[in-house]
Amino acid sequence: MYEQLMLMLKRYYSLQSALSLFYFDMDTNAAEGSIQRSAEVTNQLSAMALELLKSDSLKETLQLAKQEPLDATQKRMIAIVEKQLKQLEAIPNALYLENEALCTKAQWAWEDAKTKDDYDLFKPYLKQIIEKSKQMAQLKREPGQSLYDVLLDDYEEGMDEKSYDDFFELIKKELVPVIKKVNARKKPRPHFMDERYDVDKQKQFNHELASYEGFDFKRGMMKETEHPYTTNLHKDDVRLTNHYYEDNFTSALFSTIHEAGHGIYEQNIADAFTMSPAVHISSGMHESQSRFMENCIGRSEAFWKPLYPRLQSYFEAQLKDVSLDEFIDAINLSECSCIRTEADELTYPLHILIRYELEKQMINGDVDIEKLPSMWNAMYKQYLGVDVPSCREGILQDVHWSGGSFGYFPTYALGSAIACQLYAYLKKTEPLEVWLEEEDLSKLCAWLKENVQSFGCLKTTNEMLREVTGEPFNPRYYIDYLKEKAAKMYKIQDI
Amino acid sequence: MYEQLMLMLKRYYSLQSALSLFYFDMDTNAAEGSIQRSAEVTNQLSAMALELLKSDSLKETLQLAKQEPLDATQKRMIAIVEKQLKQLEAIPNALYLENEALCTKAQWAWEDAKTKDDYDLFKPYLKQIIEKSKQMAQLKREPGQSLYDVLLDDYEEGMDEKSYDDFFELIKKELVPVIKKVNARKKPRPHFMDERYDVDKQKQFNHELASYEGFDFKRGMMKETEHPYTTNLHKDDVRLTNHYYEDNFTSALFSTIHEAGHGIYEQNIADAFTMSPAVHISSGMHESQSRFMENCIGRSEAFWKPLYPRLQSYFEAQLKDVSLDEFIDAINLSECSCIRTEADELTYPLHILIRYELEKQMINGDVDIEKLPSMWNAMYKQYLGVDVPSCREGILQDVHWSGGSFGYFPTYALGSAIACQLYAYLKKTEPLEVWLEEEDLSKLCAWLKENVQSFGCLKTTNEMLREVTGEPFNPRYYIDYLKEKAAKMYKIQDI
Repeated sequence: MYEQLMLMLKRYYSLQSALSLFYFDMDTNAAEGSIQRSAEVTNQLSAMALELLKSDSLKETLQLAKQEPLDATQKRMIAIVEKQLKQLEAIPNALYLENEALCTKAQWAWEDAKTKDDYDLFKPYLKQIIEKSKQMAQLKREPGQSLYDVLLDDYEEGMDEKSYDDFFELIKKELVPVIKKVNARKKPRPHFMDERYDVDKQKQFNHELASYEGFDFKRGMMKETEHPYTTNLHKDDVRLTNHYYEDNFTSALFSTIHEAGHGIYEQNIADAFTMSPAVHISSGMHESQSRFMENCIGRSEAFWKPLYPRLQSYFEAQLKDVSLDEFIDAINLSECSCIRTEADELTYPLHILIRYELEKQMINGDVDIEKLPSMWNAMYKQYLGVDVPSCREGILQDVHWSGGSFGYFPTYALGSAIACQLYAYLKKTEPLEVWLEEEDLSKLCAWLKENVQSFGCLKTTNEMLREVTGEPFNPRYYIDYLKEKAAKMYKIQDI
Repeated sequence: MYEQLMLMLKRYYSLQSALSLFYFDMDTNAAEGSIQRSAEVTNQLSAMALELLKSDSLKETLQLAKQEPLDATQKRMIAIVEKQLKQLEAIPNALYLENEALCTKAQWAWEDAKTKDDYDLFKPYLKQIIEKSKQMAQLKREPGQSLYDVLLDDYEEGMDEKSYDDFFELIKKELVPVIKKVNARKKPRPHFMDERYDVDKQKQFNHELASYEGFDFKRGMMKETEHPYTTNLHKDDVRLTNHYYEDNFTSALFSTIHEAGHGIYEQNIADAFTMSPAVHISSGMHESQSRFMENCIGRSEAFWKPLYPRLQSYFEAQLKDVSLDEFIDAINLSECSCIRTEADELTYPLHILIRYELEKQMINGDVDIEKLPSMWNAMYKQYLGVDVPSCREGILQDVHWSGGSFGYFPTYALGSAIACQLYAYLKKTEPLEVWLEEEDLSKLCAWLKENVQSFGCLKTTNEMLREVTGEPFNPRYYIDYLKEKAAKMYKIQDI
């Protein structure tokens, strides 16, 4: 019956694959006037997927499969489905669909509000979304869980407020003083960073870059959208997006390295695991692979040593007089700013901390929706010392809340921390610098595939970390990595 | 229950929409290495669609809906579903899937055989496909039907061998002598037709052209594939493809007009009919709209009068010394050739006649598969006076048989004839030339929408023709149209 169950689930994942294709097509290809009717199609496909998963025949097959002698992989597969089912069962279909419909409207409202820099346009939707999210968390809640715990667990199994509180407390305690010191020694942004870089040439180089990193364009592609992201139809069709700015060439550069990091993860899952429950990789784990590539690798000298001359040859006018050292220095500058997606490595976790603190109050407490912007701005002043000039650059900057994604943000910081733990281990046990200077990332990618990526979500984050590095999640590596880097970059002795 | 039935069918058409998107994406976008796994996804989606349609709950709902008081539209909707179901029920799932698998393999074999110009590579597959098609026709056959009748009815409800025999007999009798006369007065192909036309500029002009014709790019797109075709996700997302040849610019030009003709039909179906049984428009009806645009309109002087200067401005070097008259003359040249898709209006139906005669023998008789190429070549000699130099330019030229599509070809000629019947009526009753010379096709498209296109397949071809033109299908208009044109173009008195 286990085989039977997997066959039934193949249909579920085929519908998910169709949905991914629709969403990607809407973003990158479809004509404007098609969206509304295509949304009706995707609603139907979603409903079918949901019904399939909740169907009696699937449940019966699952129960019968559980009585068979199963190996560890099979048991874990079943556990993933059971958890998914349990969560679905907790939410009545009507509520689920109501929430979907609300989020669709809220996303439009958010876009409009952001464009017009008018929080009031989004406010009523945000209020409703918070209420719906609380209502759904209430239904899923286990004894002893806070409402926010429920949502945190959705994005990273096993993580709760307690663990995140400790994590962010450490970040606050250790990093806020470092940021202050770095800020006091602020370096100017070098001129070449703001020159104009031909977009077509950027595209060409970024495709080369993704390929160099290990992304297989025979089983994927990179297109353009407003905000870069990664999606997939299955392991052999992984789709990245990017956004090119003529006056900010490093934006696309690091988006490429980041998204290709996600993409390589998807391409490296074992054949037997694609289109199976093993694909439900947690956000934290996924971010660990993208941020590992973007930061630990993509901002290192060893990575750029063979690659930088290539970049220079694309943009001779802009870069011929910029040395590798100067380039590395520039892509590692730290500066306090308002925008999360443009933040450097060091200040990034503070952006997340602020969202974490606010979400906790929004979900657990009874926050005054009117006051959210001023709370946001006050925290930016407190932790990063910046004045937020507008809602567009403040509370309206991120898409997440308009889609009902509460509990997602913390996984960004978590992923960065997991990345640094793997990085520390790798540097200690493998000749990583030699690998990187050998001119492509194939040895590194092979290591990641073998140790981390091929398993999909069949190992939990802690299982994987224990098996690979010998210890469970430890945020200390993250802190040390950031502090060492800051000390080196800004020549601070007493960090 | 009728509403309930339509809701259930929405799911079926949502799956069809997903399948269309997958196939289009595979053709125009997807990475090479994705195809095999994506084919597994589409197999799952197809199977789901089939099961949904054949499910007991759908059948029960249909039976209950039939007992309600229904209007004519509702009755016709139900009749379409019942016919579809009856045909599906006649074929056991296993046979259906066997045939699908065979066709997939046969298409690869056909491509290979065509590339290598080696009929023997395709022969064993063709033999099996004929057998499978006969086997399925046998199962669907009604009393009094020949096997080929069954297949003809699949593509054009109500048409059978008897009707097509009469139709093609008329074509043979009337047109073969005309073609001989025209051939005796052969005109040289003017030099400008074979000059090089920049492909990017072609693309630009062809997009403009499709738009001018009435295709709404806000609800559709035009991409590139090896062979041009039209598909749709629903009425608000209609997708055309084209193929540009630097040394043959009229190829893309008339593909655009043809495919946009199909596309406009899809865009013009009534809102209530998209993603419903009304979308099963017969091939003949669909071809009538594309060939109406391509030939009756797209090769007329009135159409090009306002548009030709625009074309000249795109290709000044090639066309500045070519007058409108010379251009019209060139796009209406008639020449006997081996390739159907490159045939002119006058010789085209003979290409179809040849395939019709062969199919009849393949399906009803016991044709010797070894002899098919020589039978093909003999008929090309007999009707068109040409020697077929190779199988690639002969029996292997078309994709249809490798996909098991027997009975499809005749609808191409039928569609052309329906087009001419509508055209004759329109010219008689509306100021068509004035419309065309008024610089876009909006009045014409509005007429087509109101009289023909908005109904989808809710009217049969004959119902539509009777209501619009006052008489049922009459091939005489087609013959007269072609003869008049030949007489005018080639200055033949005694035609």
